[in-house]
Amino acid sequence: MEKRSVGVVMNGVTGRMGYRQHLLRSILAIQEDGGLPAGDDTVIWPEPILVGRNAGKLAEIAARHGLRRWTTDLDEALAAPDAEIYFDAQVTSLREKTIRRAIDAGKHVYTEKPLAETVDKALELARLAREAGIGNGVVHDKIFLPGLRKLRRLIEGGFFGRILSVRGEFGYWVFEGDWQDAQRPSWNYRAEDGGGIILDMLCHWQYVLSYLVGPARSVQCVGATHIPERVDETGTPYPATADDAAYAIFELDDGVIAQVNSSWCVRVFRDELVEFQVDGTEGSAVAGLRRCRVQHRSMTPRPVWNPDVPATEDFRAGWAEVPDNAEFGNAFRTQWEHFLRHVVAPGDPAAPFPWDFLSGAKGVQLAESGLRSWREGRRVEIDELTL
Amino acid sequence: MEKRSVGVVMNGVTGRMGYRQHLLRSILAIQEDGGLPAGDDTVIWPEPILVGRNAGKLAEIAARHGLRRWTTDLDEALAAPDAEIYFDAQVTSLREKTIRRAIDAGKHVYTEKPLAETVDKALELARLAREAGIGNGVVHDKIFLPGLRKLRRLIEGGFFGRILSVRGEFGYWVFEGDWQDAQRPSWNYRAEDGGGIILDMLCHWQYVLSYLVGPARSVQCVGATHIPERVDETGTPYPATADDAAYAIFELDDGVIAQVNSSWCVRVFRDELVEFQVDGTEGSAVAGLRRCRVQHRSMTPRPVWNPDVPATEDFRAGWAEVPDNAEFGNAFRTQWEHFLRHVVAPGDPAAPFPWDFLSGAKGVQLAESGLRSWREGRRVEIDELTL
Amino acid sequence: MEKRSVGVVMNGVTGRMGYRQHLLRSILAIQEDGGLPAGDDTVIWPEPILVGRNAGKLAEIAARHGLRRWTTDLDEALAAPDAEIYFDAQVTSLREKTIRRAIDAGKHVYTEKPLAETVDKALELARLAREAGIGNGVVHDKIFLPGLRKLRRLIEGGFFGRILSVRGEFGYWVFEGDWQDAQRPSWNYRAEDGGGIILDMLCHWQYVLSYLVGPARSVQCVGATHIPERVDETGTPYPATADDAAYAIFELDDGVIAQVNSSWCVRVFRDELVEFQVDGTEGSAVAGLRRCRVQHRSMTPRPVWNPDVPATEDFRAGWAEVPDNAEFGNAFRTQWEHFLRHVVAPGDPAAPFPWDFLSGAKGVQLAESGLRSWREGRRVEIDELTL
Amino acid sequence: MEKRSVGVVMNGVTGRMGYRQHLLRSILAIQEDGGLPAGDDTVIWPEPILVGRNAGKLAEIAARHGLRRWTTDLDEALAAPDAEIYFDAQVTSLREKTIRRAIDAGKHVYTEKPLAETVDKALELARLAREAGIGNGVVHDKIFLPGLRKLRRLIEGGFFGRILSVRGEFGYWVFEGDWQDAQRPSWNYRAEDGGGIILDMLCHWQYVLSYLVGPARSVQCVGATHIPERVDETGTPYPATADDAAYAIFELDDGVIAQVNSSWCVRVFRDELVEFQVDGTEGSAVAGLRRCRVQHRSMTPRPVWNPDVPATEDFRAGWAEVPDNAEFGNAFRTQWEHFLRHVVAPGDPAAPFPWDFLSGAKGVQLAESGLRSWREGRRVEIDELTL
Repeated sequence: MEKRSVGVVMNGVTGRMGYRQHLLRSILAIQEDGGLPAGDDTVIWPEPILVGRNAGKLAEIAARHGLRRWTTDLDEALAAPDAEIYFDAQVTSLREKTIRRAIDAGKHVYTEKPLAETVDKALELARLAREAGIGNGVVHDKIFLPGLRKLRRLIEGGFFGRILSVRGEFGYWVFEGDWQDAQRPSWNYRAEDGGGIILDMLCHWQYVLSYLVGPARSVQCVGATHIPERVDETGTPYPATADDAAYAIFELDDGVIAQVNSSWCVRVFRDELVEFQVDGTEGSAVAGLRRCRVQHRSMTPRPVWNPDVPATEDFRAGWAEVPDNAEFGNAFRTQWEHFLRHVVAPGDPAAPFPWDFLSGAKGVQLAESGLRSWREGRRVEIDELTL
Repeated sequence: MEKRSVGVVMNGVTGRMGYRQHLLRSILAIQEDGGLPAGDDTVIWPEPILVGRNAGKLAEIAARHGLRRWTTDLDEALAAPDAEIYFDAQVTSLREKTIRRAIDAGKHVYTEKPLAETVDKALELARLAREAGIGNGVVHDKIFLPGLRKLRRLIEGGFFGRILSVRGEFGYWVFEGDWQDAQRPSWNYRAEDGGGIILDMLCHWQYVLSYLVGPARSVQCVGATHIPERVDETGTPYPATADDAAYAIFELDDGVIAQVNSSWCVRVFRDELVEFQVDGTEGSAVAGLRRCRVQHRSMTPRPVWNPDVPATEDFRAGWAEVPDNAEFGNAFRTQWEHFLRHVVAPGDPAAPFPWDFLSGAKGVQLAESGLRSWREGRRVEIDELTL
Repeated sequence: MEKRSVGVVMNGVTGRMGYRQHLLRSILAIQEDGGLPAGDDTVIWPEPILVGRNAGKLAEIAARHGLRRWTTDLDEALAAPDAEIYFDAQVTSLREKTIRRAIDAGKHVYTEKPLAETVDKALELARLAREAGIGNGVVHDKIFLPGLRKLRRLIEGGFFGRILSVRGEFGYWVFEGDWQDAQRPSWNYRAEDGGGIILDMLCHWQYVLSYLVGPARSVQCVGATHIPERVDETGTPYPATADDAAYAIFELDDGVIAQVNSSWCVRVFRDELVEFQVDGTEGSAVAGLRRCRVQHRSMTPRPVWNPDVPATEDFRAGWAEVPDNAEFGNAFRTQWEHFLRHVVAPGDPAAPFPWDFLSGAKGVQLAESGLRSWREGRRVEIDELTL
Repeated sequence: MEKRSVGVVMNGVTGRMGYRQHLLRSILAIQEDGGLPAGDDTVIWPEPILVGRNAGKLAEIAARHGLRRWTTDLDEALAAPDAEIYFDAQVTSLREKTIRRAIDAGKHVYTEKPLAETVDKALELARLAREAGIGNGVVHDKIFLPGLRKLRRLIEGGFFGRILSVRGEFGYWVFEGDWQDAQRPSWNYRAEDGGGIILDMLCHWQYVLSYLVGPARSVQCVGATHIPERVDETGTPYPATADDAAYAIFELDDGVIAQVNSSWCVRVFRDELVEFQVDGTEGSAVAGLRRCRVQHRSMTPRPVWNPDVPATEDFRAGWAEVPDNAEFGNAFRTQWEHFLRHVVAPGDPAAPFPWDFLSGAKGVQLAESGLRSWREGRRVEIDELTL
């Protein structure tokens, strides 16, 4: 067994997601399991090189996990002889410029979403990556969640018959920051800093819908800034200039409609923070992050509209849980494993990697189209994006 | 106590709603309770005069309930000396012409919704009614449902703080008619017969939103005919030409957004067949036909997005049931009682009656605007309707 | 509406099933509901004429239900001018001879099963009935039970994909009569009196399997007399000469296997006294008298054979209840209604009646084949029976 | 205490059962507990010598558990000076030849079932073993399962009175391999590779029935290949040539009937993957892998067949759980302990060992008879097998 070490420059791991999901639950977890088997006689060993702006925080993280390599100088990190991969988890506004530098340095690039602030910039990065011949990828974590994988398995098994519609509800109450601390960073609520829920979430819905049914061909979206003033991390009030809720209707192929609400101003009366309901001629399913429940045509009740009496029927009891029947690993780690195999053994048929910069650009395109739809009060068609 | 008898010409009570809700649960139920007290010394006694096209069915209903008066001749019924009110529960396409005859005959008119097939015709009827000086009303049953009345009570009590948004889900699975009988009449699925869920339900959403928060100022609506072929009452397949699902976004005053889905092609993973969620700065509520649950700002949890572990938090358990604290009568009967008092004692301050033809015309206007929005793929503004 | 009275000679209604299911729950229940509507303007009114050997019991039943007509003289009953139908619920050994008399008298004949003690006699009755041109039918009550009707609905809806197998368990513990009274008559346990569970139950399984999947093409059956001595109604011990348990394997078309156990010597560890499990490529169902539960392919767990630890998986929890979605009347009454319509308006397309003497003969054929299989220790082929 | 080391040549421990149950849960578990006490002052210490065809897998297993001794050369292993026992967990087709070599080498032999592919070969091995004077045994794991041991305890305690019948249901849904991976190896479904559920399971039912009531004297068996095409470990479709379900009726002494179904094409509506119901005059029991529940004559309900109303009686609630009252070790390990004591101290009265090659040959005989019964469509008598 050959141990194949791969240096991974990780930029932005002082943030919650970068630290917790990418460093801890992905890269270090792979190390703990003895590396990642790739083909018959290779074990990929990812070696993190931390980069950030705050030396103190970097030093603390490195110390906590016994890591030697960290720096505040990106060029130094990229110049390391074993650095093969650049990973970006910075705030959106810094991403494009930094990724260009990594491409210029000949590194494979893997990045958090959104790939860029505009579809033009995202496409430009995709073209640069192609010309440089580097491996490139964008985080598509939602489709690696157990709930959505079971939903996908149902689709592949033909459970739904013809799919008619998708309903999605995402959101929870983000505290305003005055009374209880906000649980999201304040830049999320400032348009000038790349904030806004449309830009954040429509990137996700693009690949989730594509994965489940097919890509959105048009979008109608209404945004809102329900809470116009919030309080930031320092306790200072600030005007919220970005949208904090988005109500969207997508048209897919074959008449399928997807209606998805995203909101940071909604209290949760659901089983999970995000839930999708898919209805088809033969059956329906409701899937969240982890769970997935189905009601087949055979179990479908015949409700009678009778407002005279309290509903005695327990409608939810008529749905059955879909068993896991498999071990689902951490969603972020699973995609990391795909990317590592993709760049180390790009031809490996067991390691397809469709989640590249072009796919990331499509996410930005949908978000951009949603914003335009809101501005112009009309349906916006989504053209097929190519390089 | 003076017994004040009022002849009510009831046209179309052989249909399920007309028979069950209007004749049985409203008019005959009032009789069983000894009439309807109005003011200090009057008891209103509604006396039904059944009208319809099928003599056999009319005779059977009359016999079953010991009623003497029925006829297939509308003019004969309207000519009865004690006939003061004309009630219409026919199919939509016959309504306008018949109501004109009743207005010409000087009767007060109460009717099922939609008032007419177009907003112009509905406004015309409203103008005729005003000129004739007759009492006029349209069924607005949903706002008399216990769930919505408790929701309204919360609003009046200031529970929500500033209201931000309304979400509505209405629908259930209507069987296609091949495998199990359909539980709705086939004309509902034929555009040429006045069918379609947009025309049916947006009339309701107009007055429900007005009642709860305020009127819709614009609408974006996408309809769909998810099931293109159904089987009718005789077992014959027919093409479904009308929309069977509607995905709508309404903008109300002060930036409030209402997103409401209506569908006959969805399986129910809810507590009730229709549910509205209202979110406000100070609290949220979820109300159905009967139940209403709230989560106050003080009880709002702080969910953390953690896809690694199964959700252990029972989000629904963090909502509290709103007690009835009152007896809510049948929704249809309650509005009948308002109408009877309104026409017998029009000045009674205890019997306001805002649900007149003009209000009914607004329902038709919203449905019409929804259909246009769907056709044109854009937001349609709703102008304030006046006579 | 024309009231069409039909005299029904009922022979053997002093027994439990004849009295309770046929007289009370069927004929008298139809009277209580105002007769049976047949076509647009006829109401069938069945008029019972009780016949039996015990005048005292007959008089008591007649008095209890306000019936005037009863006799111990069958000929007298058959000679009544309005007697159109003869119904037989006697012990099996008396049936053939009596039915011949009714056929000779030109009556329509409806009878409990088994139609006769041998297939030859049963076929002979079927031929006589055909020649006489009378309506003829045999009780097939099991297929009118809610559980089996829902199972049939699932099959019609394509739920199972390709059906692979059927498992049936019927039975309960019939007390031996010494310690607690037996809950079945003693003749059931005497071969010389037409007893035996093979003769009793295989008649049922013939039409149940035909109804669900298709007719049995071969049978392998092992009978047993597990309890060789019992105590009769008078407290006297007697040797049990008939089989009290039957273990059978049927081969149907297309490789479907049906394995059905019937026993009066088994204690019940099930939800209902009879249960069928049907397994197919796309899903499985377990149906009893009333309930029906399904597990679709999508909900199928992946059990791992691990004897080391207690089973923590609740396998039954992975099945979903099939809702009724309809009102199922009493099984016996439903078939009576079919028969009454069949003989009064034989051409009525809404009243097909496939459960005739020929079908009854097939039941006897299967029972006879089962007995031969047991005797000869081999598979017995079932030839298609024709008149 | 004398530590008596015994070399155990383990052939085929790279397979799931061989590795998990025999190496880990039996041999290594005995080591972890400090060896196996045998008599007053001896502790048997089994010392595994791994043999297999895949050097990589063997090395990996050895490394994982700190074992030094492994080889791909069987002769080398058998030649080890301390090798006293040969254990075989290879695929069936290789077994006979290899066991002959071990007998020739003078080793005691313990083997997985089936002992051989035909009863003649199995008997031949039994005769060779007797002539060689070696200890010999076949895995009979099911009778060491807690559920069956409690069932046996009930029988020994006289709980059942006279036993009348045994019903067995074994099986679960084995995925076809297209949509979800199959959880059993593909050779199980190929007759040419020794697959088939009759050969697999009837070996078990032979000793289970003997253990509980007594040996089967005849068998009637119908097999089926319900799923004719499956997908193998590499994702390639292949025709299933072996039986995947078996419906069998066994006649035991004294008129006892055992009816046992085995299937890989059935969804589980039971508490455990295998369950046996035993009915006797004095009581009944239902036992699975772990649990055992009883209903004594005194608790037997008197069910009434009343299809008119939903069953309100909870029949399962009328059964009582049999307490463990003992610690039941792993079934495989328990039999290993018997075998180790048997060969080290053959005369030990505390270590009887009836599960020898002759017993294993009886299992093959029953499987062979079941296959013949299926082929010939008749009952096959089981002659008492002797050496």
